[in-house]
Amino acid sequence: MSYRALHGHFRRIGDLQHAQSMLSWDEAVMMPRGGGSGRADSLATLAGVVHTMISDPCVGEWSDAASQESELDEWERANVRQIRRLWRRARAVPEALVVEFSRETARCEQAWRVRRSDNDWNAMVEPLHRVVELIRRRGEALGDALGMDPYDALMDEFEPGMSRSSIDPVFEKLKRALPALIDTALGTQRDALPMPGPFTDAQQAALGRNLMERIGFDFERGRLDTSHHPFCGGDPDDTRITTRYNRQAFLESMFAVLHETGHAMYEQGLPVDWRRQPVGSSGGMALHESQSLLMEMQVCRSLDFLRYAAPIVRESLGADDNDPAWSAENLHRAATRVERGFIRVDADEVTYPMHVILRYELEQDLVSGSMRVTDIPDAWDAKMTEYLDLRTAGNDRDGCMQDVHWFTGLIGYFPTYTLGALTAAQLFAAACAAGAADGIGQGEFEPLLVWLRRNVHTQASAKSTMEILEEATGAPLRTDAFLAHVARRYGAIDRLQA
Amino acid sequence: MSYRALHGHFRRIGDLQHAQSMLSWDEAVMMPRGGGSGRADSLATLAGVVHTMISDPCVGEWSDAASQESELDEWERANVRQIRRLWRRARAVPEALVVEFSRETARCEQAWRVRRSDNDWNAMVEPLHRVVELIRRRGEALGDALGMDPYDALMDEFEPGMSRSSIDPVFEKLKRALPALIDTALGTQRDALPMPGPFTDAQQAALGRNLMERIGFDFERGRLDTSHHPFCGGDPDDTRITTRYNRQAFLESMFAVLHETGHAMYEQGLPVDWRRQPVGSSGGMALHESQSLLMEMQVCRSLDFLRYAAPIVRESLGADDNDPAWSAENLHRAATRVERGFIRVDADEVTYPMHVILRYELEQDLVSGSMRVTDIPDAWDAKMTEYLDLRTAGNDRDGCMQDVHWFTGLIGYFPTYTLGALTAAQLFAAACAAGAADGIGQGEFEPLLVWLRRNVHTQASAKSTMEILEEATGAPLRTDAFLAHVARRYGAIDRLQA
Repeated sequence: MSYRALHGHFRRIGDLQHAQSMLSWDEAVMMPRGGGSGRADSLATLAGVVHTMISDPCVGEWSDAASQESELDEWERANVRQIRRLWRRARAVPEALVVEFSRETARCEQAWRVRRSDNDWNAMVEPLHRVVELIRRRGEALGDALGMDPYDALMDEFEPGMSRSSIDPVFEKLKRALPALIDTALGTQRDALPMPGPFTDAQQAALGRNLMERIGFDFERGRLDTSHHPFCGGDPDDTRITTRYNRQAFLESMFAVLHETGHAMYEQGLPVDWRRQPVGSSGGMALHESQSLLMEMQVCRSLDFLRYAAPIVRESLGADDNDPAWSAENLHRAATRVERGFIRVDADEVTYPMHVILRYELEQDLVSGSMRVTDIPDAWDAKMTEYLDLRTAGNDRDGCMQDVHWFTGLIGYFPTYTLGALTAAQLFAAACAAGAADGIGQGEFEPLLVWLRRNVHTQASAKSTMEILEEATGAPLRTDAFLAHVARRYGAIDRLQA
Repeated sequence: MSYRALHGHFRRIGDLQHAQSMLSWDEAVMMPRGGGSGRADSLATLAGVVHTMISDPCVGEWSDAASQESELDEWERANVRQIRRLWRRARAVPEALVVEFSRETARCEQAWRVRRSDNDWNAMVEPLHRVVELIRRRGEALGDALGMDPYDALMDEFEPGMSRSSIDPVFEKLKRALPALIDTALGTQRDALPMPGPFTDAQQAALGRNLMERIGFDFERGRLDTSHHPFCGGDPDDTRITTRYNRQAFLESMFAVLHETGHAMYEQGLPVDWRRQPVGSSGGMALHESQSLLMEMQVCRSLDFLRYAAPIVRESLGADDNDPAWSAENLHRAATRVERGFIRVDADEVTYPMHVILRYELEQDLVSGSMRVTDIPDAWDAKMTEYLDLRTAGNDRDGCMQDVHWFTGLIGYFPTYTLGALTAAQLFAAACAAGAADGIGQGEFEPLLVWLRRNVHTQASAKSTMEILEEATGAPLRTDAFLAHVARRYGAIDRLQA
């Protein structure tokens, strides 16, 4: 009885979260500027309603009683555990703070869209300061309730169980190993022939859709659109990915689309029977990112995949078959180019963890209060110099203003990118060992998708990320598979052997 | 105090209604087919939440108390009256019926999208039957609570105060006058030279946006997109109109866009200070329709306007200046062509009321139960034969399946189209008398927009449609202005004199 009540209540919550998800997608993709203020209000009110429903005392009572119901199956019990977790987190944060957080982050994000292109950091200090103060209050409230330190409590929202004590040793290994790997990669790589261009947005979108469909994206249950920053939104039956187009560099958008397709296929692979229940939702964001990075980095930037894709790319873009710039080998050189650069989303997989570690370290200082918002640009510059030998001074657009995350209240999220890269490498190695990747060079993606569906997607939130990883790969999270992959792909003089 | 509480409560309701509005827009414009079932659930849950909030007993208490607060100004008092009206209507309908209605109409509409193009009436009988049964229950519940007959109670939702006793005499006048006017029009009109084409969707969209902007649509607060059926959605700060494109007949889309622009400018002209309050919302749908028809029929199909627009049309579509098909006079002949046709949305303004009267009569029989859903095609055919001398037998796609309204639960809505046409003619005559339309031939739309803003748009729901009409025109609703307009434009041998 109590379980049924809980199930119905969270089904309704899921219905409202669908509205939140779609309004957020619309805000980024469709909404005219004048709609911003009203949209922020709507999202704030929805967030308040959802928060009230999740934190309702009856959820505590029902979940207590449901825990005692003996006839529940394994998934129903897991659903109760997930609900209990959400309820405890929601109870920890006062509704007024939830509403204010939603409103301020929506406004700050809207301001960021305008100010970033103007490189106007000063205009963002005040809105970002307000967001950071709200995050600190949120982190403290969560930490108090859950017996965690505030930053751990924030991270735990994005990837349950993720904490500094588990991340620090992993990131330290990367900080030790990557500088030498970056040097090796830079010393051994050969220049690619310049990529042809320009190509219109429409041409690039057609190419993206073509590849998405071949890999396994279901367009009956999803879309590809354009936004300021690529993302995957929507829900399992209406999964919406976005990209942006650089007319002179079609590979940027192509790989962004393939990346988001990995996210999207995870969503589309969630179990149909558990729609809009917490246990049927995707797991933590590290696991989500592993699905995008597995597709983008492990699969699609491989020479194997590019040998299959090159003729499709040429045909979609109307290219000359005999131009050596269009060869699979040249595409592979371009797709695996390593460079110390300013922009995280444009970074190769070897330097990328340094971008994440920089943010991970800075955002801890923001949450603890040891760094003020006004000090971000200098701190950013210092870390970029230390980790990637680059000065960002004055170029905040390509420095601390490049990512939407902090401006939209996502603090504690960045580490999931690198945990996702490690997880992707470890999962893909297991999939390869099982023979699931053998046909990629011939465009056979079905065996890999079946392997992922079985080992990851259909597990949804019935198990933790770490349980899913261990069952799929036989080992806990390690840096080995990722570092071996990097050494293999970027350590040889002739990468075409890798 | 009570007024403040009421204001805050309805502000939150307005925020959720924004979500409903945008999800409905998205469903029609963006959503992939697989998202349909989940979207229907979300809209149903939102409808339930909104209904619960409107019908909350505290709204009754607060509005009782607020009615006694002496310091309220005129708009605040009107807001309390509007809120009271909404509350009484919401209390009348059980929440379970609201949720079921939302879910069934969403499903029925989704089925209609597929089945209409297949001309598959049989597949629609069952879903439409379910919707009609829900509407009957709704009409009875409303009628009981408000002391009205069920069909009047349904109509009153779309245009407060609209009832059969006020509509029947007006429609009887039209039924008497129009057949002769249709004959005269058909007998006197000259054929237009065939309109050139085809033009791509993109060309037509560019023309539409160009004209929208000149007339006064604010693209900072709105969009134009494509859907199965043209409509105006969104809200005052994010007004979304849609159209569909016929490559061979660009005028169809052009006038559909101008029509929806009239709706949109009404929304965009609502008073900023009363956003998301009942008193700040647009008035009844007859008044709304008067704004679209005033723009489309009174303004944009006039020779005066087309003399201004012809060069813009030619330039947007890349047409030959010397081709007589592109002359203002030929565009006007095409734009004022009268024809007895099957499709309401394609109908000219002379035959249009007959389409509405047909639906008005049939839907009363559906609500009273004197006609079953299975009998609709035959009854449709009989009325089409009587009123427009056309047989629809077998062609349900262009007969009883042509409009989305019934399938999405809109019964009692159709009369607003013709009341809107009468209101548009009466308002435009007054605007002309005030000199506000003098510059249309020179592309000066500002004076007309100012007149409409002052006399209609900024009144929002502070007054009733009839009060607004009487204050703006000095007379209650009559058929005179409309019939005079029709006689003037369609009664002369050479329409160019009209």
